[in-house]
Amino acid sequence: MQRVAARFAAQGFATHLGLRLAQAEPGHCVIEAPFGEHLTQHTGYFHAGLLTTLADNACGFAALSLMPEGQEVLSVEFKLSFMRPATGMLARATGRVLKPGKTLTFCQADVHVVQESGEAVLCATMLATMMGVAP
Amino acid sequence: MQRVAARFAAQGFATHLGLRLAQAEPGHCVIEAPFGEHLTQHTGYFHAGLLTTLADNACGFAALSLMPEGQEVLSVEFKLSFMRPATGMLARATGRVLKPGKTLTFCQADVHVVQESGEAVLCATMLATMMGVAP
Amino acid sequence: MQRVAARFAAQGFATHLGLRLAQAEPGHCVIEAPFGEHLTQHTGYFHAGLLTTLADNACGFAALSLMPEGQEVLSVEFKLSFMRPATGMLARATGRVLKPGKTLTFCQADVHVVQESGEAVLCATMLATMMGVAP
Amino acid sequence: MQRVAARFAAQGFATHLGLRLAQAEPGHCVIEAPFGEHLTQHTGYFHAGLLTTLADNACGFAALSLMPEGQEVLSVEFKLSFMRPATGMLARATGRVLKPGKTLTFCQADVHVVQESGEAVLCATMLATMMGVAP
Repeated sequence: MQRVAARFAAQGFATHLGLRLAQAEPGHCVIEAPFGEHLTQHTGYFHAGLLTTLADNACGFAALSLMPEGQEVLSVEFKLSFMRPATGMLARATGRVLKPGKTLTFCQADVHVVQESGEAVLCATMLATMMGVAP
Repeated sequence: MQRVAARFAAQGFATHLGLRLAQAEPGHCVIEAPFGEHLTQHTGYFHAGLLTTLADNACGFAALSLMPEGQEVLSVEFKLSFMRPATGMLARATGRVLKPGKTLTFCQADVHVVQESGEAVLCATMLATMMGVAP
Repeated sequence: MQRVAARFAAQGFATHLGLRLAQAEPGHCVIEAPFGEHLTQHTGYFHAGLLTTLADNACGFAALSLMPEGQEVLSVEFKLSFMRPATGMLARATGRVLKPGKTLTFCQADVHVVQESGEAVLCATMLATMMGVAP
Repeated sequence: MQRVAARFAAQGFATHLGLRLAQAEPGHCVIEAPFGEHLTQHTGYFHAGLLTTLADNACGFAALSLMPEGQEVLSVEFKLSFMRPATGMLARATGRVLKPGKTLTFCQADVHVVQESGEAVLCATMLATMMGVAP
């Protein structure tokens, strides 16, 4: 999973936000961000744009992990449902491949927010379509 | 539209990313981000998470502009289609209310990327559901 | 779950298509349609519109089952990913509530198609937002 | 646009529902269904599954109209927002191509319901991803 780690690290946006690649296995990927004021929306929760970035990364790199060497992954489209206010110490997106394919890979990511108690609360979920492209 | 400007500015995430509120009228909102390495994905384009953040802001504040004073706006869900690689000097999301409502407001945002030539290329579009909540 | 059965049966569309309510428990609902030429798209598979109708029913009635007596359920929005061609003897949507709420209920439905061998193949998945309304 | 008419007519589902291909031009397609009890959900409106079928057809055939001869069109994914109760004499989906492509075509369809007064009310909108495949 060195390839996933390398492509993850090549994202200026992920670095700027302080995202962490917590886990990467074939068809599976976990991305995290600890809470900070710089990640909040106007009422103090994690911003929907940040949760989306976590989930997009988790889906995209889960998809990339099953693609032939040398391919890059691009997001074709995604949809998120925001089920609960995302408040807590750490946001974590867990992405998995639902169906790999030669052209398109379908993925889902659940976004949990970890509370002080350690409990992980499901706050959002994403369905995504990823595409493998030759560089 | 002072309320929109105030709520926009209250987002730590928007400040951290350098987003600009370019326009705010009833049912309409434009948010921009000039290109920078800190906004890119692994192949150098604007990151899907950044484009989503712009579109989410444009939809959310277009919705808020039609809500009763004192309400806050939350993102219930959204979906984006990424039609073209988002490469250029400036990304701009233009949000509009499709249907306001007492509980839910339906919105759409188009995301264009402005080229060196000045041409604005449509790169993504979002359909979003926003909810007004009492603080 | 008599209420779910009654509301399911009140749909002219479900009757016209020959849908069956296969299971209804709190927060969970299964809807089926046996294959027929009248349910196909132009290449002979189950039509995306039919798979959507199954999934919309499965999500909607899973949501209704957790709502206060007397409320009706309406579809606010949904998104489906079609992962594989839907070909086989029977299409079955299994809906579950991800997060119930006073106003909005978030649901997901998986659509499987049962093969002659008995194998159930995942062909589509839906994320949906449902709303409870007073009649 | 004979090809669109032929592929539209090849759908058992469209025939069973009484759908009409009202217009077909390059990158543009209109599909209609007059109201009937057999198209309703449990409160008497046009069923979300029927509105989806109209919109899916309008997007799919708008996409097909721009594809090379001999290709078929398949729905990869779509999302609909249901903005208003769909009640009236006729439901009409107007689909257009937002961005054609060699592999994927991005489309949008608006669904209006025509009232007795003749007014057409926007009730739903779809964003869709369509794929061209060799037969």
